[in-house]
Amino acid sequence: LFSLIFDLEEERLKAEISKRKAKRVLIQLPEGLKPVGPRLAEIVEEAGALPIVSADPCYGACDIAISEAKNLKADLIIHYGHTEAVKAKIPTVYVEARAKVDVSKILEKALENLSPWSRIGIATTVQHIHMLDVARKILTKAGKTVIIGDAGHVKYPGQVIGCDYSNAEAIADDVEAFLFIGGGKFHAIGLALATMKPIIAVDPFENRIHPIADDVKRILKQRFMCISEAKEAESFGVLVGLKIGQIDMKAAMRIREYLKEDGKKVTMLAIREITPESLMEFPSIDAYINTACPRVAIDDASRFHKPILTTNEALVMLGKISWETLLNKGWFKHFI
Amino acid sequence: LFSLIFDLEEERLKAEISKRKAKRVLIQLPEGLKPVGPRLAEIVEEAGALPIVSADPCYGACDIAISEAKNLKADLIIHYGHTEAVKAKIPTVYVEARAKVDVSKILEKALENLSPWSRIGIATTVQHIHMLDVARKILTKAGKTVIIGDAGHVKYPGQVIGCDYSNAEAIADDVEAFLFIGGGKFHAIGLALATMKPIIAVDPFENRIHPIADDVKRILKQRFMCISEAKEAESFGVLVGLKIGQIDMKAAMRIREYLKEDGKKVTMLAIREITPESLMEFPSIDAYINTACPRVAIDDASRFHKPILTTNEALVMLGKISWETLLNKGWFKHFI
Repeated sequence: LFSLIFDLEEERLKAEISKRKAKRVLIQLPEGLKPVGPRLAEIVEEAGALPIVSADPCYGACDIAISEAKNLKADLIIHYGHTEAVKAKIPTVYVEARAKVDVSKILEKALENLSPWSRIGIATTVQHIHMLDVARKILTKAGKTVIIGDAGHVKYPGQVIGCDYSNAEAIADDVEAFLFIGGGKFHAIGLALATMKPIIAVDPFENRIHPIADDVKRILKQRFMCISEAKEAESFGVLVGLKIGQIDMKAAMRIREYLKEDGKKVTMLAIREITPESLMEFPSIDAYINTACPRVAIDDASRFHKPILTTNEALVMLGKISWETLLNKGWFKHFI
Repeated sequence: LFSLIFDLEEERLKAEISKRKAKRVLIQLPEGLKPVGPRLAEIVEEAGALPIVSADPCYGACDIAISEAKNLKADLIIHYGHTEAVKAKIPTVYVEARAKVDVSKILEKALENLSPWSRIGIATTVQHIHMLDVARKILTKAGKTVIIGDAGHVKYPGQVIGCDYSNAEAIADDVEAFLFIGGGKFHAIGLALATMKPIIAVDPFENRIHPIADDVKRILKQRFMCISEAKEAESFGVLVGLKIGQIDMKAAMRIREYLKEDGKKVTMLAIREITPESLMEFPSIDAYINTACPRVAIDDASRFHKPILTTNEALVMLGKISWETLLNKGWFKHFI
């Protein structure tokens, strides 16, 4: 079923293993693709290597299982669904898992939603990046001016990832709205926060357009309240991510310093999976600053019992940057 | 509060940091002790080092955060609540967190429960290991013959840990029952499975005696059913632990081989925290063999939606050893 929807590049997988003479291969898949793990393992085995599928949660290319591969004595990592974001010390092959779904039909429908605007930016995830040209043609034919951004941070022009919308931010002032192509609401919401533009979120898997304006409003209100609540906190936990692309000791040390200058108590906490259960183990801590994945605070706030701020939100709380700076394409910038 | 109950050895903590001239210290605490993290961090800071508290789950000395310490550039690990079990490539100081609770009163009461037997083995966790002599005296005075086992696998005679009851197994044939001293039911249940002897489980924190016979009966029934259920499975996941003391590639490879000889489909899965959510990502897998922590299968079976067997239980399922071998002090032995 999955191989009907996603291009798993099974032939390339075999070829990469043969070419590299890999003996033990660690396969990493994002949550939605994990069910194909056993099937991919079979292919790796046919290619002559021992396959091990990672069953740990994986939400991005920030989470390359390098230490895990070393400890398992794997000589190759196959990482599905994301493009390269960190330098790995173990050979790593990225398979983008392009979606084999057509977007034309739902895009034709989206033209209605785009009717108020004439200058449109397009953004998408790597799964649909080969559809950018199709989308551009449909919009151009309908008389729109289409702009696709390229800030050079991620692999493809127009590509966005959960914590990097630089391609969209780069053109946000030149467009009236964005067309987003991709599954679910997660990236569309990030895009809205990053650009503060109207987003028409086209989901080619469900063949529907997701309304996200209310989600964004709810989240902004919640973020503002979390920052206000954290201002009252006396004891802070500064979370340092343990996933290889999430460790940011520099940001953590800076925030720690700022909090101390402000008379707060600070405990540095190293953590891999940021869960409500893990944080509940520290009852004396009133609020958390998460220097790892910004989406944990933004999207999962209601799951946690204490306020969690992103690094940028902490800077707002501390008066180092303004709430307006955050709103003005600042949500995913690096102010530290 | 915690420092009233447990000896956190704060002076030794400071001295170890000074002596080693540590600059960045990763503090690891088991779940029950995590709340003292912020306080211990203060002490580490007073001693001149940067403290980072690990917020990841930690259930044993199998889980020393070596990769994590490396990635955080920590030069010292302080590990609370367990005794050394793995060789760490980063200097690691173990603080045993001895309990400062008296056991005499509840032991006097336990004499009643011990009245049917005259030859008694004593076992305890490291938290109460200094109470072994007190316990021995009270039992001896009451006319009992006391035996304390020493198989040489763990640090202290009479000490048991969640997955190693060798000190008790070594004397099980020489005693009629065991006195167990420690908090909760977890170790007492393990001791019962490991020795199949009556256990009087004395909890010096709650000052009570835990009845565990029904728990053990329920677990044995459940384990037998899990093995039967797994026999019907066609597709297996062999779990390889990623915690440093839980990786057992040799056992995993052997089980994989046996399963294949038996005509089963096998996928090797590497995993850090074994949760129902992680395993649910693989709907095509019917049953799991867990070569990491045996307690996950034994104690948490009802949380999982598919059968999970320990390595030894897998050998029973495959007909390599008998159910009786498992029952006869075999639960925590290494048959592979």
